[in-house]
Amino acid sequence: MIPTVEWKDGVVRLLDQSRLPNSVEILECRDYQTVARAIRELKVRGAPAIGVTAALGVALGAQAVQGPTMELFTKAVFGICQELAATRPTAVNLFWAIDRMKRVLSACQENPVALVKQRLLEEAQTILEEDIAINRAIGTHGARLLQDGQRILTHCNAGALATAGYGTALGVVRAAWEQGKQIHVFADETRPVLQGARLTAWELKQDGIPVTVMTDNMAGALMRQEGIDVCIVGADRIAANGDVANKIGTYAVAVLAHVHGLPFYVAAPSSTVDLNTPTGDAIPIEQRDEQEVRTINGGPAVIPDGVAVWNPAFDVTPAKYVTAIITEKGIVRPGYEELQSII
Amino acid sequence: MIPTVEWKDGVVRLLDQSRLPNSVEILECRDYQTVARAIRELKVRGAPAIGVTAALGVALGAQAVQGPTMELFTKAVFGICQELAATRPTAVNLFWAIDRMKRVLSACQENPVALVKQRLLEEAQTILEEDIAINRAIGTHGARLLQDGQRILTHCNAGALATAGYGTALGVVRAAWEQGKQIHVFADETRPVLQGARLTAWELKQDGIPVTVMTDNMAGALMRQEGIDVCIVGADRIAANGDVANKIGTYAVAVLAHVHGLPFYVAAPSSTVDLNTPTGDAIPIEQRDEQEVRTINGGPAVIPDGVAVWNPAFDVTPAKYVTAIITEKGIVRPGYEELQSII
Repeated sequence: MIPTVEWKDGVVRLLDQSRLPNSVEILECRDYQTVARAIRELKVRGAPAIGVTAALGVALGAQAVQGPTMELFTKAVFGICQELAATRPTAVNLFWAIDRMKRVLSACQENPVALVKQRLLEEAQTILEEDIAINRAIGTHGARLLQDGQRILTHCNAGALATAGYGTALGVVRAAWEQGKQIHVFADETRPVLQGARLTAWELKQDGIPVTVMTDNMAGALMRQEGIDVCIVGADRIAANGDVANKIGTYAVAVLAHVHGLPFYVAAPSSTVDLNTPTGDAIPIEQRDEQEVRTINGGPAVIPDGVAVWNPAFDVTPAKYVTAIITEKGIVRPGYEELQSII
Repeated sequence: MIPTVEWKDGVVRLLDQSRLPNSVEILECRDYQTVARAIRELKVRGAPAIGVTAALGVALGAQAVQGPTMELFTKAVFGICQELAATRPTAVNLFWAIDRMKRVLSACQENPVALVKQRLLEEAQTILEEDIAINRAIGTHGARLLQDGQRILTHCNAGALATAGYGTALGVVRAAWEQGKQIHVFADETRPVLQGARLTAWELKQDGIPVTVMTDNMAGALMRQEGIDVCIVGADRIAANGDVANKIGTYAVAVLAHVHGLPFYVAAPSSTVDLNTPTGDAIPIEQRDEQEVRTINGGPAVIPDGVAVWNPAFDVTPAKYVTAIITEKGIVRPGYEELQSII
């Protein structure tokens, strides 16, 4: 199992994804500020993974709080929650996981601080373990949708590296593969941060699942000329009406899938569904530093100085382009009532 | 005027586009083999530019042939033509320009070798000068299609750098700008070789035309969220039915434009239309070395070793997605009869 994130001996250990695939390095976070920075700098990324990591960050921060009273301790931990919640705006799993930590804190106000610290750590570890179990359930449900011999297009990385383990979109791929289905994954490289080229290719290769990488702008030609059977991606937030926020470029893949008559599946834990967000238009889209586009992988600038750059990290795919959403609770069609039934 | 390619003192001088935007270097080709290598290695690229460059390469090669008889001279120059024609398979302008050189050679068989060498050089220079004039005519016709205040999406580089000067798609943009229309260009970076980021941004900045660069996978979100008014691209070959081969990713832009109800224009000299190619399916698509995708701009590999890569240089956009084709002879709709009328 690829150790995306774990708690060990009082330390939050992260596989530094900014170094992959050329170097496999573990980042040891000994304070919550280091965890927050790792999320902000994409050393750990993927909606479920940042949820789990933030929960562990809250637990890590809580251990270090020297609160003489429960009131001061609670205030300090809420501050930590706030800092971790401010790292990235789009993925709702981050807020969902932090809310779970806050609820534990609120429910334990009558207990001694030392016990509450223990409960917070347990809750974070539960979130981590549940995430893996959820991904396996997503895989089991989703694998029914994949047939032997199919060619599957995916965008970005919704794999073990985007979760506590196993993956969402790639969890479906893994489950189908484990059932003996001979499948082939085509991974968009996913500019600007290249999660498809660097991460999806790396983790599928670890598991021996056939994968071909191409640039993002090849997906259309691939569907038209070479043939793709199905598209599967992850999600950072799903609005109540089924609109899906996911890595920039997902929308274009969904439109192309629609035009080519291909099923377009979104695989995500039910915690990604945000019933408080009525439609995709209400999802805040993170704009990232233009430097991510301007220079690639540490090379020289590829854009002349003084030229403007647009760099949204996510886009929204309207529900009408989403064939189905695969969650741990089963396969649902987009739309308020179906989504409400799984929350 | 940006000197993409020129003949000077017996040398073919090319602006080395593989070095832009960080370094402006002139490559001096003193033999036709260097010209052939420059085309193959994308130091010069863009369908009209490689046509002009190949013609100059034939002239350059011919000057050096020490043929004692016209028969041997002709044989040698035909060999040079063959080598230059083998550099890249998709852009038809390459074959069109070389054919013009061959026709001059065939027509001059009764003349002394020295005079034929002179005629070949004159023909190549005529092709170059005509290309600039053609681009200005494309600009004049196309500018009628652009309105003040419009936001224009382009893919790859169909500019001065892709031609002998002024550009095709960017010739239209330049002509509109020269008419005082306040327009803004959005340039797909155009992986894998980044002609949009490196070249389109560079040459528009030289002329003071507002330009924003984004990754290829942002084009769909840009159309949906921010608004684009019109798409204009170049072409490497246009089949008799109006199907258009152009830089990989063009097809996806055309589909997205269609879904968003945006006009999608192709700007190209009439020499790009190949009536011998009935449909886009008959256009040979160059597959390039996977190293272009695997490493970016001289940086470390972004894809794990042993993972497969797909790297077609071009794709085909079916005529149904092309609103109009802008040539030096006017604006035509795709389709055999309209295209035949302009050849």
